[in-house]
Amino acid sequence: MSEPNPAALSGFIRQHDHFIITAHIRSDGDSIGSELALREILLSLGKKCYIFNNDEPAAYLSFLPGFAEIKNMPPSDIADYDACLIADSAFSPRLGSVYNTLQTDGPRAVAVIDHHQNPCLNDFCYIKPDASSTGELVYNLAEYLEIPVTGNIAIDIYTAVFTDTSGFRQTNTTARSAKIASMLFPEIKDHYPVMMQSIFEDNRYGGLKLMGKMLEASKRTADGLIIYSLLERRMFAETGADDSDLEHFITYLRSVRGIKAACLFRETGKDIKVNLRGKDITVDLVPFVRRYGGGGHPQAAGFSVTGKSLCQAADEIINALNLYLAG
Amino acid sequence: MSEPNPAALSGFIRQHDHFIITAHIRSDGDSIGSELALREILLSLGKKCYIFNNDEPAAYLSFLPGFAEIKNMPPSDIADYDACLIADSAFSPRLGSVYNTLQTDGPRAVAVIDHHQNPCLNDFCYIKPDASSTGELVYNLAEYLEIPVTGNIAIDIYTAVFTDTSGFRQTNTTARSAKIASMLFPEIKDHYPVMMQSIFEDNRYGGLKLMGKMLEASKRTADGLIIYSLLERRMFAETGADDSDLEHFITYLRSVRGIKAACLFRETGKDIKVNLRGKDITVDLVPFVRRYGGGGHPQAAGFSVTGKSLCQAADEIINALNLYLAG
Repeated sequence: MSEPNPAALSGFIRQHDHFIITAHIRSDGDSIGSELALREILLSLGKKCYIFNNDEPAAYLSFLPGFAEIKNMPPSDIADYDACLIADSAFSPRLGSVYNTLQTDGPRAVAVIDHHQNPCLNDFCYIKPDASSTGELVYNLAEYLEIPVTGNIAIDIYTAVFTDTSGFRQTNTTARSAKIASMLFPEIKDHYPVMMQSIFEDNRYGGLKLMGKMLEASKRTADGLIIYSLLERRMFAETGADDSDLEHFITYLRSVRGIKAACLFRETGKDIKVNLRGKDITVDLVPFVRRYGGGGHPQAAGFSVTGKSLCQAADEIINALNLYLAG
Repeated sequence: MSEPNPAALSGFIRQHDHFIITAHIRSDGDSIGSELALREILLSLGKKCYIFNNDEPAAYLSFLPGFAEIKNMPPSDIADYDACLIADSAFSPRLGSVYNTLQTDGPRAVAVIDHHQNPCLNDFCYIKPDASSTGELVYNLAEYLEIPVTGNIAIDIYTAVFTDTSGFRQTNTTARSAKIASMLFPEIKDHYPVMMQSIFEDNRYGGLKLMGKMLEASKRTADGLIIYSLLERRMFAETGADDSDLEHFITYLRSVRGIKAACLFRETGKDIKVNLRGKDITVDLVPFVRRYGGGGHPQAAGFSVTGKSLCQAADEIINALNLYLAG
């Protein structure tokens, strides 16, 4: 079997004229950056396009050129669109309400560009699970189409690659993504201070306060191998924080020297959300979370618990995890 | 004047046989990585070398090949060394006790490789203040000497460049450093998970607890333009943290959306240390800190205050900074 490449997707793009572009719910830097870069590519080929997402895009990405073009309503002239291009997701319920709209009213021609482990929908899809990011694949597509990756496209793609690798820190970083970054850097360097500040320094004050409470409340097991903390419902009210502030919390717990796993328990009012991260790369958390009906990756997994108090759930699960890690 | 290049330093290396390598006190990833890469380069040219630093190197860098070769005692056969190569610092008191030892007993031939704004000591120095890091210059030197940058040298140089740009996030990131990273990445990718975990996930538990207290105690001024926090002496005792845990504290304060400056006050027992960061890139903090006998860069500066309580110092300085920012 040949290595996934952008040839068929390029053919799909050439065959159609009016594109709806979409991505998964709660779009991140990779999906938004990829959508906007795809839009620039399509525009440069004289195509018409419309970005239609389930949610409003996160404000910290507003530095991206074309950000205002992201809509969360379908186009009024949806019947005029002859193709749909999905970035960073399969054509699936993960698209949110967009999925139903596209299924009923959308164009029948659909293609996917994605680095997740998704099945190919049809021959036009460009899916490569060992790529760092969808942004990396959009770069490959632009190169294949011989579209210069400069200006706006460079900012969009760099942001996609940079955010999905957490700034080239995660193990999904690839040699190709490092090379793409180095080729794009001269194009974007004047924008770099604003980009970096928007990406990494846009925390809300309430979120900072909640993180303070979470760190203060953190505990380690007697053997020091698990670190965990509890977020009570009242802490959100006290600080004005909400779930959107939690992104880096568990990463910070995981940063402690000598632990094997980090665990964050969050009281939502209707259940207890349990979020786990592995630090010891020989540990696989998936079999553990499956006991509780959860899922995820070997080093990042989670599940929900109902009918227990926050403390009760934490006590039981930390004990079970301790046995599992010893096991 | 020609652009600084490694030609003269290469000549210096070729002319001598036994090298003492050193760097500034409290060596960081750039200085340690650069020293170890220089050692590999010199060894590959058949030279003898000895790394002599003021302090023990930080434990989080122990993944670097050759880490155990870093000594904080001079070689017993110091008279046999005919050259000294200083990385990431001038030949100055910033070398700590090493400076005096080298001045009295060290070889008279000295050269410097550095990206700080330091005067050239002599014609052999390779100083380039617009480089991202000393690691970037060591890469240029290896390339000039036609030494393949593979294996250990690749790990050392990547670490130097990566840490001094805070993972390509800071404005000192250069197109050259991005290119070097992309060329080195395929050489180091099997070591990447360990490297990244050592660099970013080696916080001490006490430091995490202290950061929690610091975030909880943080305040914003009424206009929301300054965020600040106070570290009382007792907090260190309560958490078991010490000054070595403080590195990212102010970065985290600075990460809050909408502020212009972040300020951290720390009670040491003999004075109050005041650490400032600018977030609005049009603000220059240097004239402000000079009023208090301090110094630094436009966006990162500090000073000390004596004879005042922590709260008193904070109140006065935040008021003055507020007027300064308005001004």
